[in-house]
Amino acid sequence: MLGIDPGIGRMGYGLVRSQGNRLRTEDYGCVETRPGPIGERLVRIYEKMQELLQNLNPDVVAVEQLFFYRNVTTAFHVGQARGVVLLAARQAEVAVAEYTPMQVKQAVTGYGSAEKGQVQRMVAMLLGLPAPPRPDDAADALAVAICHLHTAPTMALVRGRNGDDRFPAGENRRSQS
Amino acid sequence: MLGIDPGIGRMGYGLVRSQGNRLRTEDYGCVETRPGPIGERLVRIYEKMQELLQNLNPDVVAVEQLFFYRNVTTAFHVGQARGVVLLAARQAEVAVAEYTPMQVKQAVTGYGSAEKGQVQRMVAMLLGLPAPPRPDDAADALAVAICHLHTAPTMALVRGRNGDDRFPAGENRRSQS
Repeated sequence: MLGIDPGIGRMGYGLVRSQGNRLRTEDYGCVETRPGPIGERLVRIYEKMQELLQNLNPDVVAVEQLFFYRNVTTAFHVGQARGVVLLAARQAEVAVAEYTPMQVKQAVTGYGSAEKGQVQRMVAMLLGLPAPPRPDDAADALAVAICHLHTAPTMALVRGRNGDDRFPAGENRRSQS
Repeated sequence: MLGIDPGIGRMGYGLVRSQGNRLRTEDYGCVETRPGPIGERLVRIYEKMQELLQNLNPDVVAVEQLFFYRNVTTAFHVGQARGVVLLAARQAEVAVAEYTPMQVKQAVTGYGSAEKGQVQRMVAMLLGLPAPPRPDDAADALAVAICHLHTAPTMALVRGRNGDDRFPAGENRRSQS
């Protein structure tokens, strides 16, 4: 279960697996792209996604589905990064699940309006980490991965490897909860 | 010179070449993606871009750089499509040039606030087409390609094949005009 927090400047990622009733992370971090032509930054994000998909072999990629942005410029830039993330996932035949920020907060803390600090402390607690993961983008990616595992307990439903029972982005997630 | 009008549902494209002081189009059209998982639609757009880049072998890909959208949802969706367009261009080592809608209108009609119909009629006239090209997305893609050819007369400046003199998106375009 790979959580992704897409962005042009920084993309957070975090792999979370469930073992019995416990969660653990095997890999998390943040890729930074240097300022420069947008095409180069998108190639970097795309190649990092390909690497993560190949090395970590997740069943599902979970991303936040934001509906509100501070402004259209932010929405547009995040959109470009998100486009190549979803492209890489689809090409690797890995299903994509989308969750709203409220769903993520609700799943991680039990409270849909939780503050960022609370979410990060709960992420650390649930994953048995000594402190909230850094940077924030990695913590956000782990949170959306945890959200998916909490709201999709029957993993068989969301295995997308063979293309038949793929989890359509933004369609079936309600039936998982 | 390949103009692209990116979108999730419809992506317009148009190849324009200059011959002496005349312009002509060799190929233009619009790819439609069927409603469904966003990942599939992005793969379709990406693969069409790869096909266009390989078959038409443009020196430059020109896209509109929009700063204002009706709303963030539109910005976000166009952003996702644009992300995979710029990714494909960069991977093919083709330079990207970006122009604002006002620059496109100014270059095509001589008037930065021209109406859509005027732009389309001028596109037809400049390319020697009997009628404005259809659909609108294809006409828009041809318009941005014409804008690039009008504002970058010294094509050597923007040849991006060897990676040294690449035209950085959104940086050097003012020096072209």
